[in-house]
Amino acid sequence: MSAIRVVPNATTRAVSLLRTIQYTHPPSCPCHSNPNHHHHHQKGPLLTPYARRNTARGYATPQPEKEYAFEMAASAIRFGNGVTREIGMDLKNMGAKNVAVVTDGTVDKLRAMDQVRAALGEEGVNYSVYNRTRIEPKDSSILDAIAWAKPIMPDAFVAVGGGSVIDTAKLMNLYTCYPDADFLDFVNAPLGKGRPIDKPLRPLIAVPTTAGTGSETTGTAIFDLVSRRAKTGIAHRNLKPTLGICDPLNTSTMPSAVKASSGLDVLCHSLESWTAIPYTERVPRPANPILRPAYQGSNPISDIFSYNALRSTVKYLPRTVHDPEDEEAQYQMLLAATLAGVGFGNAGVHLCHGMSYPISGQNPGYKQHGYEVDSPIIPHGVSVAVTAPAVFRFTAASNPERHLQAAEAFGVDITNAKRESAGELLGEAINKFLDVLGDQPRGLKDLGFGREHIEDLVEGTIPQARVLMLAPGLATELEREKDQLRQLFEDSLSR
Amino acid sequence: MSAIRVVPNATTRAVSLLRTIQYTHPPSCPCHSNPNHHHHHQKGPLLTPYARRNTARGYATPQPEKEYAFEMAASAIRFGNGVTREIGMDLKNMGAKNVAVVTDGTVDKLRAMDQVRAALGEEGVNYSVYNRTRIEPKDSSILDAIAWAKPIMPDAFVAVGGGSVIDTAKLMNLYTCYPDADFLDFVNAPLGKGRPIDKPLRPLIAVPTTAGTGSETTGTAIFDLVSRRAKTGIAHRNLKPTLGICDPLNTSTMPSAVKASSGLDVLCHSLESWTAIPYTERVPRPANPILRPAYQGSNPISDIFSYNALRSTVKYLPRTVHDPEDEEAQYQMLLAATLAGVGFGNAGVHLCHGMSYPISGQNPGYKQHGYEVDSPIIPHGVSVAVTAPAVFRFTAASNPERHLQAAEAFGVDITNAKRESAGELLGEAINKFLDVLGDQPRGLKDLGFGREHIEDLVEGTIPQARVLMLAPGLATELEREKDQLRQLFEDSLSR
Repeated sequence: MSAIRVVPNATTRAVSLLRTIQYTHPPSCPCHSNPNHHHHHQKGPLLTPYARRNTARGYATPQPEKEYAFEMAASAIRFGNGVTREIGMDLKNMGAKNVAVVTDGTVDKLRAMDQVRAALGEEGVNYSVYNRTRIEPKDSSILDAIAWAKPIMPDAFVAVGGGSVIDTAKLMNLYTCYPDADFLDFVNAPLGKGRPIDKPLRPLIAVPTTAGTGSETTGTAIFDLVSRRAKTGIAHRNLKPTLGICDPLNTSTMPSAVKASSGLDVLCHSLESWTAIPYTERVPRPANPILRPAYQGSNPISDIFSYNALRSTVKYLPRTVHDPEDEEAQYQMLLAATLAGVGFGNAGVHLCHGMSYPISGQNPGYKQHGYEVDSPIIPHGVSVAVTAPAVFRFTAASNPERHLQAAEAFGVDITNAKRESAGELLGEAINKFLDVLGDQPRGLKDLGFGREHIEDLVEGTIPQARVLMLAPGLATELEREKDQLRQLFEDSLSR
Repeated sequence: MSAIRVVPNATTRAVSLLRTIQYTHPPSCPCHSNPNHHHHHQKGPLLTPYARRNTARGYATPQPEKEYAFEMAASAIRFGNGVTREIGMDLKNMGAKNVAVVTDGTVDKLRAMDQVRAALGEEGVNYSVYNRTRIEPKDSSILDAIAWAKPIMPDAFVAVGGGSVIDTAKLMNLYTCYPDADFLDFVNAPLGKGRPIDKPLRPLIAVPTTAGTGSETTGTAIFDLVSRRAKTGIAHRNLKPTLGICDPLNTSTMPSAVKASSGLDVLCHSLESWTAIPYTERVPRPANPILRPAYQGSNPISDIFSYNALRSTVKYLPRTVHDPEDEEAQYQMLLAATLAGVGFGNAGVHLCHGMSYPISGQNPGYKQHGYEVDSPIIPHGVSVAVTAPAVFRFTAASNPERHLQAAEAFGVDITNAKRESAGELLGEAINKFLDVLGDQPRGLKDLGFGREHIEDLVEGTIPQARVLMLAPGLATELEREKDQLRQLFEDSLSR
């Protein structure tokens, strides 16, 4: 590979739906005339900010090259009202004889599981049901699920539920295919060993029952690593489900509050992947394509998914939350969740998600209105959206055009808007949207957080290197980065 | 499955980039209140036009139900200047030890093959090269390629070239995985037996050297079935390449005329898939998901790909044709070809493609300017684009909004445009675009066709049922359909 180093040039500019977005990379490398033999020039103090960040964080290469390619992959998606019932034929077509159906105690009693059971029964497919999936899975809950699966050794997996269920099923699939692996082997570095998944796993069909995570399209599984007090995960393309069966009728069972928080997750998936650093700014360029992360920064194909998902979410989320009979909105929100899943699954998320993990984990006692739960819970979507106004005010300077376009997706007239106003316009648009949605906290104070919690929230965010490295404008020097995060949490206290 | 029949409703409306497109299906089924148990009502004379078409063509169901779901699948795509060189590591990561590299005599001498050879050499991957691929493959040329591969029994395939090469490699993969199958077993019905591919094939990495076919993303392979004097093919999702390696530097070797005709193929892929009948109008609903065709009609996800590809092609194709140094345009055209591939690969094409096969096959002696060939050739892209102005004038009545949006992609101001003018506006926009591109025939007459050829052209189009069934507005009664095709060829004689 060392013979060919190609500098990203004008041709790496993003295609956009509405206009051409220009990435900030210089359009050509002026010192060389042969485009096949460009060498990358480090500018200024030898390393770019992202290079400095990564070097500081222990990457081996002293002068890492920037990325020059992107890769897009997504699960096959089947979409339609009532399509769950095809799953029996799918499994029979695959020749599956011993299927593990993964769900949780709630979904086990709902329409989606009824349909799956009926479909498997009709086709005479043998299956076992695991329904102990924990919402917001922990390593211990995942180990329980893996321990359940190992003696069964299923030849195919079916996940019926929200992101927690689908993510748990992905890990059951992984660790039954690598029965001798240590749990930390595949966990994202630096908490785990970040071992790549070097063989195909068994078929996994995901049947989402929320319009939120997009996990049916991605190779990511998220959980709490309790021993390290951190939210982390495993991310590799081979974790992707074989097929996502997206049946809007399965999402009609969501209570309104769950629709809202799931939908806010979609909103942030699309906003964060749309505004993530361009893939050409990510370092290091992987030495082997198997090491190219799925969270690779924004790119011309993820942009298309992310921006479409954003527009749809703005249009349909309030409708689906306020009118449980609005089938069109329900269909469009599941579609938006899936599109956003493809977008962020190949581009990544950044600050809202990175900051959300300590917010959920350090919950002072908040219970989301409309959630029938015994213990306090800040739903994932609420914890990502609560910082969104402050986050996008902060990131706007990195790419004002993109932030103006995001504001336009919220209906803001940007005809005469100035670049310097991009953050303010987008932040205000998000605020208004949250108010229209209703029942949303107006900042961290409403969740029970005060200034005294900020230091712990900052400390809980720092380990989220995998997403923070995609945040535009975040400093690479640790103390400066902490200052910025402190300010973001402070700006998120109330709005 | 018979217990659940769900009528497509308002929620099947398409998501659009610029506004919401509404499909023409009624928004709800008024006689039933339980959305899980709608039954489909046949309107009017029991069968819809498409049902009549299919019944007339020999489908068994007397009252076939319309489709209610769509499925999206595409190859993983890696995209970047210089990325070809990663292919050695990819094959090594897969554990491939005996690779068949498929190319043609021309590409074998170009940069792309140099890069592939070097990459395989660096990683010490054992490979054999087949370079006898015929441009516009015939069954005999494909059988030659399969006969070459069978004794080698490769464990992975690499295709380096345009659509002909990639399609040939797909079929080499298929028939070495089913060594006892008869060639016609998998060929699209009614010419072949249309047997579904019921197991995964071997890994296939496609490296396109033209920005045209999008074959690197699709499960389609097209060839001439000489014995039946027809262009046909094999289409199944399992034919899809594992990975498309899209390296814009590989497309810089195309002569200008090849860039133009490849790009016109992209233009028609995007226009035809964008205007194809909606998937909810396709019949019959498949009895088993394995029978759901890849060419399923337009749907909310293919729409996103098709419309983006259309906008990019309009913007970048003239630049790449007129300025061989314009690397940005070259990058964007390869991206557009790939996006259009995902679009039409999941939605289908219709009249331009259906009519192009007899145009190419019955060439009276035309040689495209800029093609250095001994025998006459109407390049595929030229043969699809020559009827486009007439085709979209004809199809506009089926969905004026969509055709107006297509005209807008060409830069037409549609603010005050009337629905009735949609066809005229789009047809005129395509005419202008072809003129700006230059060196394009101004109709079939410029290719050497006259009125005396029309009957044969019509007869050569009729067998293209697989794409004609996706053409909006085409009659189902054979004589009426022939009249319409006759008129379309006549309207395409000159412009």
